[in-house]
Amino acid sequence: MTAPRFGAGLWNFASYVDRYATDGYADHVSTLEQIRIAGTVGDLSVVDLNFPFSDGATLEEVKDALKAANLSAIGVTPDIYLRRFGRGAFTNPDPAVRTQAIDLLHETAEVVRSLGANYVKVWPGQDGWDYPFQVNHHDIWKLAKDGMREIASAHPDLKFVIEYKPREPRVKMLWDSAARSILGIQEIGLDNIGVLLDFGHALYGGESPADAAQLLIDHGLLWGMDVNDNLRGWDDDLMVGSVHITEVFEFFYTLKINNWEGVWQLDQFPFREDTVDTARASIRFLKAIHRALEELDYDSLREAQARQDAIASQKLVQDVLLSCMRKDA
Amino acid sequence: MTAPRFGAGLWNFASYVDRYATDGYADHVSTLEQIRIAGTVGDLSVVDLNFPFSDGATLEEVKDALKAANLSAIGVTPDIYLRRFGRGAFTNPDPAVRTQAIDLLHETAEVVRSLGANYVKVWPGQDGWDYPFQVNHHDIWKLAKDGMREIASAHPDLKFVIEYKPREPRVKMLWDSAARSILGIQEIGLDNIGVLLDFGHALYGGESPADAAQLLIDHGLLWGMDVNDNLRGWDDDLMVGSVHITEVFEFFYTLKINNWEGVWQLDQFPFREDTVDTARASIRFLKAIHRALEELDYDSLREAQARQDAIASQKLVQDVLLSCMRKDA
Amino acid sequence: MTAPRFGAGLWNFASYVDRYATDGYADHVSTLEQIRIAGTVGDLSVVDLNFPFSDGATLEEVKDALKAANLSAIGVTPDIYLRRFGRGAFTNPDPAVRTQAIDLLHETAEVVRSLGANYVKVWPGQDGWDYPFQVNHHDIWKLAKDGMREIASAHPDLKFVIEYKPREPRVKMLWDSAARSILGIQEIGLDNIGVLLDFGHALYGGESPADAAQLLIDHGLLWGMDVNDNLRGWDDDLMVGSVHITEVFEFFYTLKINNWEGVWQLDQFPFREDTVDTARASIRFLKAIHRALEELDYDSLREAQARQDAIASQKLVQDVLLSCMRKDA
Amino acid sequence: MTAPRFGAGLWNFASYVDRYATDGYADHVSTLEQIRIAGTVGDLSVVDLNFPFSDGATLEEVKDALKAANLSAIGVTPDIYLRRFGRGAFTNPDPAVRTQAIDLLHETAEVVRSLGANYVKVWPGQDGWDYPFQVNHHDIWKLAKDGMREIASAHPDLKFVIEYKPREPRVKMLWDSAARSILGIQEIGLDNIGVLLDFGHALYGGESPADAAQLLIDHGLLWGMDVNDNLRGWDDDLMVGSVHITEVFEFFYTLKINNWEGVWQLDQFPFREDTVDTARASIRFLKAIHRALEELDYDSLREAQARQDAIASQKLVQDVLLSCMRKDA
Repeated sequence: MTAPRFGAGLWNFASYVDRYATDGYADHVSTLEQIRIAGTVGDLSVVDLNFPFSDGATLEEVKDALKAANLSAIGVTPDIYLRRFGRGAFTNPDPAVRTQAIDLLHETAEVVRSLGANYVKVWPGQDGWDYPFQVNHHDIWKLAKDGMREIASAHPDLKFVIEYKPREPRVKMLWDSAARSILGIQEIGLDNIGVLLDFGHALYGGESPADAAQLLIDHGLLWGMDVNDNLRGWDDDLMVGSVHITEVFEFFYTLKINNWEGVWQLDQFPFREDTVDTARASIRFLKAIHRALEELDYDSLREAQARQDAIASQKLVQDVLLSCMRKDA
Repeated sequence: MTAPRFGAGLWNFASYVDRYATDGYADHVSTLEQIRIAGTVGDLSVVDLNFPFSDGATLEEVKDALKAANLSAIGVTPDIYLRRFGRGAFTNPDPAVRTQAIDLLHETAEVVRSLGANYVKVWPGQDGWDYPFQVNHHDIWKLAKDGMREIASAHPDLKFVIEYKPREPRVKMLWDSAARSILGIQEIGLDNIGVLLDFGHALYGGESPADAAQLLIDHGLLWGMDVNDNLRGWDDDLMVGSVHITEVFEFFYTLKINNWEGVWQLDQFPFREDTVDTARASIRFLKAIHRALEELDYDSLREAQARQDAIASQKLVQDVLLSCMRKDA
Repeated sequence: MTAPRFGAGLWNFASYVDRYATDGYADHVSTLEQIRIAGTVGDLSVVDLNFPFSDGATLEEVKDALKAANLSAIGVTPDIYLRRFGRGAFTNPDPAVRTQAIDLLHETAEVVRSLGANYVKVWPGQDGWDYPFQVNHHDIWKLAKDGMREIASAHPDLKFVIEYKPREPRVKMLWDSAARSILGIQEIGLDNIGVLLDFGHALYGGESPADAAQLLIDHGLLWGMDVNDNLRGWDDDLMVGSVHITEVFEFFYTLKINNWEGVWQLDQFPFREDTVDTARASIRFLKAIHRALEELDYDSLREAQARQDAIASQKLVQDVLLSCMRKDA
Repeated sequence: MTAPRFGAGLWNFASYVDRYATDGYADHVSTLEQIRIAGTVGDLSVVDLNFPFSDGATLEEVKDALKAANLSAIGVTPDIYLRRFGRGAFTNPDPAVRTQAIDLLHETAEVVRSLGANYVKVWPGQDGWDYPFQVNHHDIWKLAKDGMREIASAHPDLKFVIEYKPREPRVKMLWDSAARSILGIQEIGLDNIGVLLDFGHALYGGESPADAAQLLIDHGLLWGMDVNDNLRGWDDDLMVGSVHITEVFEFFYTLKINNWEGVWQLDQFPFREDTVDTARASIRFLKAIHRALEELDYDSLREAQARQDAIASQKLVQDVLLSCMRKDA
């Protein structure tokens, strides 16, 4: 088993604001600077970039910065959650805003082509509702699908991945689970739309991330993933492995037995921590997980799972998980 | 708008046990006695019966009891969650137990035919897992679908409805949401399998019950429903309207604008309350909801929802909801 | 029963940012402008002001603005959650930052005196932790109490209220519940520290807001409150009455039977709605709640509660709650 | 650091029922048989026994069984949650039932004396409420405290520990958190009442178990504990270490730095697993945790915590936690 390739959303190296610390937890970090910082982590091969780039950076400057940092783009994520899309992007009640969202997606598609990235990543964080009775549920779900269909059908040469999430910033988001995402993609009826599974989103949405991954794989739709951690009640975007060690391992185990060989990406929001140190600590943990995957007794685990034997499977897992860290790592 | 027909799971009139009060919260109530009690509620037209019947009651006795109580059967729910199915019914690791589950379903199908009920209700409460790594997620989901396919394909003249639920008694259940249920039914590929939506299951699973209902209706799969309430963290099966007044109303509003005209069924577990009084209090509330539905300004609400106007829609809703109770009711 | 006095946190009339819509959901609104807007709501008597005031507004300008808007200050809330306090205010690992927090509190105390407000409101949103093993739990709780003791003992003529909250922006906050707050205040040992109960914080922290209010009243510590709503999983700060009608009513019922006669304050974050309309809609609902309080059959409810009779109490409550809205309101 | 002493609630070796598998997940196991089975685990020194004993077992028979199994009693837990106490034990609306609860506690006190156990364990699972408006919150909390005061003051030579829990079987329990329990014990005003902290109860109640332990220790009230695991949404009573490895470790770390030297007890409900194998697997994990405690770099961790340095502390913890399992264990 070769070492995994690591990646990260570029926002892992940004500074952050929230509704209380409105002056931000740190100074602004530009797109180009984020790329430079990502390059210093040391184990990253690819990044997922927000678009538009900040501070007027041009596509050429971004390409140069990526090259200088020894990184390539795996995906590009349009900012369809900023102010003008605050009441929705594809599902905005105002058709003019919906058009703006589509237009931004078209631009993003061009950027993906130009960067040679794998996919346009669509995270429709503002598409949903806040209150009971606020929306007609049929109509809003139709808008969500129509927007995706319009943009994906216009770029049949590109891949689009939807990153589902139960909620935040809307009280309820439309693309909220693996099953709902698969269903929506089927309803759209195009074969260039897939899913990016965020471990933390699955976890706090009440899914088993491993089960969600398997369901997506069985439908041929797991086209990307990222990892982080939380306390199961919110999308805390903590360091990987800081809370749910066993379930992270089960997630990667599921990828492995399905021969899924994509990039292991980070999606963390280190509001108060050093962004590079956070990424390194998570990758250090992921390398340990990778060692555990190499040492696992797969035959015995398969047999235990065939019996649905919780005790035997836990022991097999603990044997490798609780001995996977090298102190010199 | 004519008055709705009311129904109830027959277990609403049983006695209950839990893992602490192992001697039960009240004396045992037999199937025949439950039917008699259900008949005293006064507003019930139909019941959903557990099968096998308790205390050796025969099908003929049950028919007679239903007739005497002026009730008919809307569905029959096989007990695929008792001890022998404790480690799973359709997904039991032991093929012999899976066969027992299928056999019980065949028997249930006969009972449905004989009673002239609408459907076999399948609630696979033991089909799932408790621990990370306990199961192979692909295999167990396949078992769940295979079981449903086998039984539904054997009885093409009958309808089968799956009642999904996020968890309990298993830590995680397979048929856990509206979207997953639709997806699974599509994978099975038969047209005599639908869904029974339990309001409380949707609520504590993080769904909007109204949205889940709409999704099922849009797929032609909302074949039954029942209502109750909870605190969003567990399937408390409390009286309807005791907590989530607005969302109950949104649920019935959604049914109405889709011309869904099935039975309004109760699924409550009054561990410590009088079972008949509980049913009556819930129906009293539901009649008030029905009045609110009659008085709602649909045009204005539609316009508010087209604007996704939370304030206007809340006001329209509060106008009728907070004036729907008649003190002489 | 005379009509309640209404109040609001001045931030109800601000614009908002979150970690995604980093450009804010609307244009910046200055302190002075927020006061002017609050004055247009029409039913507000008092406001709780953030300090420092924005855009260089002076205390005299604020006083003039309040007078012009026909408002007075009920409390002042220091901004101990902005960037410099991102890793904690009273519990910051850096003693210099802790001193800055204390200094800001001293300034706030002067403002409270000058405005003739009722209290300094302390909401230590950054005091807590994010990760397991990040803090020594004894030491950090001691810092939290020491900070409160230092500032409250320095101003024995003033009242300080702590607004507890389970989490956000920290993954876990120290002052997280009514019971913990009472305990901490007892440990501090001063009689000029009380509690401001936020209905939504209690709700999503797993408390019954009514029960939390009663506990605080029984300890003589309920010195302020505000209301809003959420889906029990996060501090959504939605309009009052949009979700939990019955529990809002139980909360005010509890205040009434204890003769608690403080201001009914709003704490809402209308990210996407008009701020004045939101406040008006909530007050419209609260006036209906007030009517329901007037019409409630207290004797019968008391008797039902003495029997712990859930059915009887629900009926008594629904009788007045579902008939409390006047269409001409 | 010497090896910990292990214990278990005797119910770990019982069979279980829930509201669905009403015929139980396995055959009935008598008290005497549970003791015999507990003796076969091999690492248990003490058990906590339910009282009354089942199947007519006498106190002498229990003593003999304990001796034969090489076990002693750490505590005795009266069954104040069976049918007759279904609507409450100390808080039952019927004074006659309250008296029955007190009487059962008196009997239990005698058993504790006779067995030489450490404490009477009080788990008032039925003391609380299910519905908004069902109870007067002041009155019911007073009943809860009065019951504890009456029984503890009658037996000043004995210790009583309250095991708090947020909910289940009641929708809401009164003794629901560490802080509330400390507060209630202070209000009672006796020095022979303490707390037994259940790791899983703390976890799913939104507490950090380590923080709850520290708070109790700082008040001199952590008199017992037991461990298990869950998914943070319910009291699943799973095997220790199956989900929350890091937080279990933080919990024991907190006990260690406070020189807390009580028994490490199990409280698991292996509905579907072999009860002895479940206990052994958990103890195997706990022994690994104990090794990690021995190898931890306490000085460095203390320094990291003084800086509230999440990254450094996670690394120190992962170093020992992910290398604590011996394959020959």
